[in-house]
Amino acid sequence: MLQRNPCLANIKAGYLFPEIARRRREFAAAHPGTATPEGRIISLGVGNTTEPILPHIDRGLVEGARRLATVEGYSGYTDEGFLELRERIAAVFYQETGRQGKPISPAEVFISDGAKCDIGRLQLLFGARAPVAVQDPSYPVYVDGSVLAGAAGAWTGTGYQDISYLPCTADNGYFPDLSLLPKDGLCYFCSPNNPTGAVASRDQLNALVTAARERGTLIIFDAAYAEYIRDPGLPRTIFEIEGARECAVEVNSFSKPAGFTGVRLGWTVVPRELRYAGGESVKTDWERVSGTIFNGASNIAQWGALAALDEEGRREMRELCDFYLGNAALIRAALHQLGIACVGGDNSPYIWAHFPGRDSWEVFGEILEKCRVVTTPGSGFGPAGQSFIRFSAFGHRQDVETACARLQAGLEAGWLRYRARAPFGVAEGRSSLHSKLDY
Amino acid sequence: MLQRNPCLANIKAGYLFPEIARRRREFAAAHPGTATPEGRIISLGVGNTTEPILPHIDRGLVEGARRLATVEGYSGYTDEGFLELRERIAAVFYQETGRQGKPISPAEVFISDGAKCDIGRLQLLFGARAPVAVQDPSYPVYVDGSVLAGAAGAWTGTGYQDISYLPCTADNGYFPDLSLLPKDGLCYFCSPNNPTGAVASRDQLNALVTAARERGTLIIFDAAYAEYIRDPGLPRTIFEIEGARECAVEVNSFSKPAGFTGVRLGWTVVPRELRYAGGESVKTDWERVSGTIFNGASNIAQWGALAALDEEGRREMRELCDFYLGNAALIRAALHQLGIACVGGDNSPYIWAHFPGRDSWEVFGEILEKCRVVTTPGSGFGPAGQSFIRFSAFGHRQDVETACARLQAGLEAGWLRYRARAPFGVAEGRSSLHSKLDY
Repeated sequence: MLQRNPCLANIKAGYLFPEIARRRREFAAAHPGTATPEGRIISLGVGNTTEPILPHIDRGLVEGARRLATVEGYSGYTDEGFLELRERIAAVFYQETGRQGKPISPAEVFISDGAKCDIGRLQLLFGARAPVAVQDPSYPVYVDGSVLAGAAGAWTGTGYQDISYLPCTADNGYFPDLSLLPKDGLCYFCSPNNPTGAVASRDQLNALVTAARERGTLIIFDAAYAEYIRDPGLPRTIFEIEGARECAVEVNSFSKPAGFTGVRLGWTVVPRELRYAGGESVKTDWERVSGTIFNGASNIAQWGALAALDEEGRREMRELCDFYLGNAALIRAALHQLGIACVGGDNSPYIWAHFPGRDSWEVFGEILEKCRVVTTPGSGFGPAGQSFIRFSAFGHRQDVETACARLQAGLEAGWLRYRARAPFGVAEGRSSLHSKLDY
Repeated sequence: MLQRNPCLANIKAGYLFPEIARRRREFAAAHPGTATPEGRIISLGVGNTTEPILPHIDRGLVEGARRLATVEGYSGYTDEGFLELRERIAAVFYQETGRQGKPISPAEVFISDGAKCDIGRLQLLFGARAPVAVQDPSYPVYVDGSVLAGAAGAWTGTGYQDISYLPCTADNGYFPDLSLLPKDGLCYFCSPNNPTGAVASRDQLNALVTAARERGTLIIFDAAYAEYIRDPGLPRTIFEIEGARECAVEVNSFSKPAGFTGVRLGWTVVPRELRYAGGESVKTDWERVSGTIFNGASNIAQWGALAALDEEGRREMRELCDFYLGNAALIRAALHQLGIACVGGDNSPYIWAHFPGRDSWEVFGEILEKCRVVTTPGSGFGPAGQSFIRFSAFGHRQDVETACARLQAGLEAGWLRYRARAPFGVAEGRSSLHSKLDY
């Protein structure tokens, strides 16, 4: 029989979120009380959106679906996407870039069915021998996709061989030491960051682009949470940075700003200037790879995105992001009251909470057991995520309020019980949860 | 700077359909008359659907889009797809399989955004060292995707190194010599076939499955045109064949039966029994790969597919396929009147026409120039496609009628003119176009 791709043997356990879902199912099966309205499990775990699509944007989707039943409005394969949508994205998200350098042209915008899917395809451009660096912690698809592409080796217990993990911790302000960037390699960089919620400043991104150009690094910049940025001084795209057109690709998505997780629509910007070591155009290869193993995003989703990009749609996207940022503020407040140090949640929908000396999966299990709240264990995002928990602000308001109340009640009690059998580090008292850091 | 994936240097020219689009654009730019209603170019080229989605199925899409604006109806990521849709697909398309062997379970059905996209992802399961065989001619993504995955070598002028091309010609009834199947390799098999339109019989598929099991070959069976089969004796899925669960994956799509090319919805069946040489489960790996670099199909498209699978939706799918089969009958009749031998078009939407001794791209160019009709050159589908042209039945009825009239007028005149300067093979008279074969 056919051999298995040897890369698959390297990938450890399940992908993070299916594994969380499995543990949640097991817990629910063992605890019938979770089937009651009061006892039910609340998820602050995955980054899945929960709120209905707002009316104007939804009308775009409905009209798009209607149009397909008419002779004039019917359309089939659209390859790189509707030209009008590529133009709108270039105008709405990248026009301001023009003030700093050259603007993004619609021909450099490629419509996709989501950032994660395009990241998987982008890895085909560079193959098995590309040195790969990731922020540590980071969104799992960068690393897992690199393993599938053969660009990483075996699991060592804390990470994969051949992947450069660039620690992003409180000590360095969640921005990596750029001297660790691999030469002539690939660097995934996400800002606003998933999972830490930290946002890179303009100075930091200037330093990143400068270092990337000096070291021949190509940056795959994930800006999927850019619409959550409320601080006007923070950059929303890598292309606000001079020189980025020569060293960066940007992936982005309507999932989080427009609630399109189930609609499936994103885009990728590949600038014309981008070249490999041999001088070949990355954009030309991207067109070839996309044309070969992708067949375009749903046209209905594209009509929805067009609605999201007019004046009323943009107001709705802002309203939706504000709602989730409101959830984030509640979670931050609850954690602060418990004395748990955290970062993020002000310009991003994720809060990164520190449980010093604790194992992430154990804290995950404890919060699930004591509070019936699903979170995401930080160690699932990389070695530097150990002892952290990611709280997601995607949830109904009432659920977030209930979860916060349960956290406040449950963690206090739960922590004290846990302490007696703490297997990690020294046994720590309640006071160790109070952060010395002022995030 | 970063190195290019060396596999990319192997891929020749553009992907077939972008190349056709380019030649069409160039022709239109050079011939202003093509901008007039009478002179305009008609495409019988790509397999893009042209007819509006029928009312009941479209209502499913519209309702799906509406639902997303409600608290009760909203949904985000759906991973492998709606369970209800997986159940319906298992019941509607695979229930009959149960009569022959074990039925397909919903857990073996994975919802995708289309067959082409899943083929790209499937190649990750086997990696660069898998010996790959394709029917020759075949749909380009099998070969081009294999080149991207590193499973093929350089272009030799007629094909890629390390790919086994299994000729499917009039001489072998468009079914390959199974002794050519590579041992412990991968074989792409498409029935009803794109581009030849030929459909494998039950005896032929029995032979294929037997040979695959003897030789350790995994079959990736592409059944995207199965709903076009009108002959009740012809198998519509590989899983009608005893033993297929041990050696085959099936990819399929709503694109062609429901007009979903622009909606994006397909599925892949990976049976539980399927194992690699080392005994690992292919299905388990598929769940891991999909979970890593895919984020699920559009929920709106899934609601549309649910509508397509109830009684009224199935009636509409049959009506749509019947319409395109009506187009196919017109094209077949026109080609027969011209004495051009062809196959397909009775249980499939493609007609495969033979121009003995001629170069496919030259015939393509001639038909474009003389008739302003876009076709697909057979050589774009593999070495054995040389001297063939694929006519697609996807088009408005009036366009197909006009195209047929132009073909009859233009090809007669064009052929006679061409004859004087024929550079391929011996100069052939008009009579050589009359097939000796009775297709």
